[in-house]
Amino acid sequence: MTHTVTILGATGSIGRSTTDLVAQHPDRFRVGAVVGGCDAAALAKVARETGARFAALADPAGGPALAEALSGSGIPSGAGEAAVLDAVAQDADIVVAAISGAAGLKPTHAALRLGRRVALANKESLVCAGDAFMRDAKRYGATILPMDSEHDALSQAMAGRPLADVRTMMITASGGPFRTWTRERIAAASPAEAAAHPTWSMGMKINIDSASLMNKGLELIEAHHLFGIEPDRLDVVVHPQSVIHGMIYWLDGAVTAELALPDMRVPISHCLGLGDRLTIARGRPLDLVALGSLTFEAADEARFPCLALARAALAEGGAAPTVMNAANEIAVAVFIAGAIPFYGIADLVERAIAHFSGLHRTAPDGVEEALAIDAEVRAWSTAALPRLRAAG
Amino acid sequence: MTHTVTILGATGSIGRSTTDLVAQHPDRFRVGAVVGGCDAAALAKVARETGARFAALADPAGGPALAEALSGSGIPSGAGEAAVLDAVAQDADIVVAAISGAAGLKPTHAALRLGRRVALANKESLVCAGDAFMRDAKRYGATILPMDSEHDALSQAMAGRPLADVRTMMITASGGPFRTWTRERIAAASPAEAAAHPTWSMGMKINIDSASLMNKGLELIEAHHLFGIEPDRLDVVVHPQSVIHGMIYWLDGAVTAELALPDMRVPISHCLGLGDRLTIARGRPLDLVALGSLTFEAADEARFPCLALARAALAEGGAAPTVMNAANEIAVAVFIAGAIPFYGIADLVERAIAHFSGLHRTAPDGVEEALAIDAEVRAWSTAALPRLRAAG
Repeated sequence: MTHTVTILGATGSIGRSTTDLVAQHPDRFRVGAVVGGCDAAALAKVARETGARFAALADPAGGPALAEALSGSGIPSGAGEAAVLDAVAQDADIVVAAISGAAGLKPTHAALRLGRRVALANKESLVCAGDAFMRDAKRYGATILPMDSEHDALSQAMAGRPLADVRTMMITASGGPFRTWTRERIAAASPAEAAAHPTWSMGMKINIDSASLMNKGLELIEAHHLFGIEPDRLDVVVHPQSVIHGMIYWLDGAVTAELALPDMRVPISHCLGLGDRLTIARGRPLDLVALGSLTFEAADEARFPCLALARAALAEGGAAPTVMNAANEIAVAVFIAGAIPFYGIADLVERAIAHFSGLHRTAPDGVEEALAIDAEVRAWSTAALPRLRAAG
Repeated sequence: MTHTVTILGATGSIGRSTTDLVAQHPDRFRVGAVVGGCDAAALAKVARETGARFAALADPAGGPALAEALSGSGIPSGAGEAAVLDAVAQDADIVVAAISGAAGLKPTHAALRLGRRVALANKESLVCAGDAFMRDAKRYGATILPMDSEHDALSQAMAGRPLADVRTMMITASGGPFRTWTRERIAAASPAEAAAHPTWSMGMKINIDSASLMNKGLELIEAHHLFGIEPDRLDVVVHPQSVIHGMIYWLDGAVTAELALPDMRVPISHCLGLGDRLTIARGRPLDLVALGSLTFEAADEARFPCLALARAALAEGGAAPTVMNAANEIAVAVFIAGAIPFYGIADLVERAIAHFSGLHRTAPDGVEEALAIDAEVRAWSTAALPRLRAAG
């Protein structure tokens, strides 16, 4: 049986890994709609190569360029929010939700409302509006398949066994480029140093989040929503080789784990396979003898305060994770621009959470409210920065 | 619901771990029959402590001592093979088959014929007569639950997923006391040096098998029968910390694994729980940060030829594993007695397999045939030893 796969974020890293897998299994998959951000040429290329049925660019100004680049292909296209939602509405068995950032919320939520199987790579959907997304997935009969390697690993290690038997769900962190650095050295780190991720090749923003361990904080929040597990049964361990991605510590002392060399096609294949295993051409098999050793360290919240902030936001609940995420996005952007030091990220996030904790006590009830809080916190954070820098 | 647990091998290490777990969960379990080897006092003590319904000693001469030790308890008892089979015939929801050696075959097989759930710790049942045991388990509606930590780990890591998706089932070996020794040093090793197992506390015979890696060969043969997997999809990796016990390498490159600190109560609890998890009092939680690292090495068949012999016997099939096991038992006993060097074990095993390969081409059809081959090989091995020593 052939499954139609719609790809939101088709020109990004996850999107490209998805099209690679889909192309390897033409008997199992065909591409439905593809959605890109602002690169019309790249999206047109993906659409042509995959034989997509529809292509939509989020940037409304890119419509003519996309149509031009697709001319003669017979692939209909559009641009802007309505076109993106048209793409989501195309018939599909699986929707890969891999648009990064807050821009991913609306299209992802639209797929849930259509009762689709959604392979979720957009972190913000669960971080900013997790309660609403999980509630609506249930309400509209949608299925959320975790596409992060960590959550896929937790899912594989759970293997459908009961949550009541879980003592702790543990995700691993590579530790990022600052794993062995002193606090003083981290304080003076440059954006280029922070972006040098040791094991995964990802975007700049994600790499900075890896350096601050905020990415692990975001993943804890996602795990809470995906698996319905309480914050105090979630934990992080630093594992520099990034071979074990997630572990379930069971009540009886046994631990089940999933291991794989870093390759996003592994979790993607688990989502697309819907329970079946897909072969992955040019995949590297795990060779533990060649690796020699897997090492583990405690996550140091003194050097990586963003992890502690994320844990606190998760424990606080309400809109705290939404606020944290928005402040972190602004802080990371400003750090990349060279305007604040590395610990300025945690500083801004902490201040934003403190500032907004009395203002938004309940979790956003839906995408609109989450986006409104997101915009409010971004504006506040941007305005607060000059004052913080003057004070700092 | 309370399950009745009959324990064959109640005075041994597995038996004691089983009674420990059963005593921790009086609401879930009661003890049915208990069977011991030749220590009447120890068996009577177990029977009294667990409130067993019947006690049987394999040694026929121990009957009066057992009856005397149980006087006033109201627990009926017996001694000899018939009494052991009476014990197996007692009503039970789970039979723990933990008699070590060839003596375990008949009682274990009797439990299968009664269609029981059999938690299998007796390696010889599958090594000596695996085809017959698996066939009869199916024929009589019995279930075999693997109680070795390695096979339990494989079972946990499989989690009911399809065997067709497995690339390799991998069991781990601690590497034994000779892991870092040169071949020359191993060749001159004493029985006391060979019996010093680094991570597990077991019996002398099992410790020698760990030193030679024959134990891993036996476990590969067991895995072949338990999971119905071909020999060339089974492998061993040396992992000195003995924390990961078994791994499933899937077709898509992902690996699922089970980890636990060495504690036989973990696999026993998985068997007794029948899918439910049991808490284990005084269990040590796995702390990967405290451990620091998990290391992996290739198994070196040049220094550990017994592993290569076992793989070859498994690949050859027929009665080769039965022959190998019997020759190994004699060779280990003679090594412990100081009469042959360490590599004399592999030498005798190799010669026995070569000698018998033309004589017993097919796998034993049942317990009687397996025991007959076992006795024949033991006699031949014992007789061959003086000649080998003279020639060596």
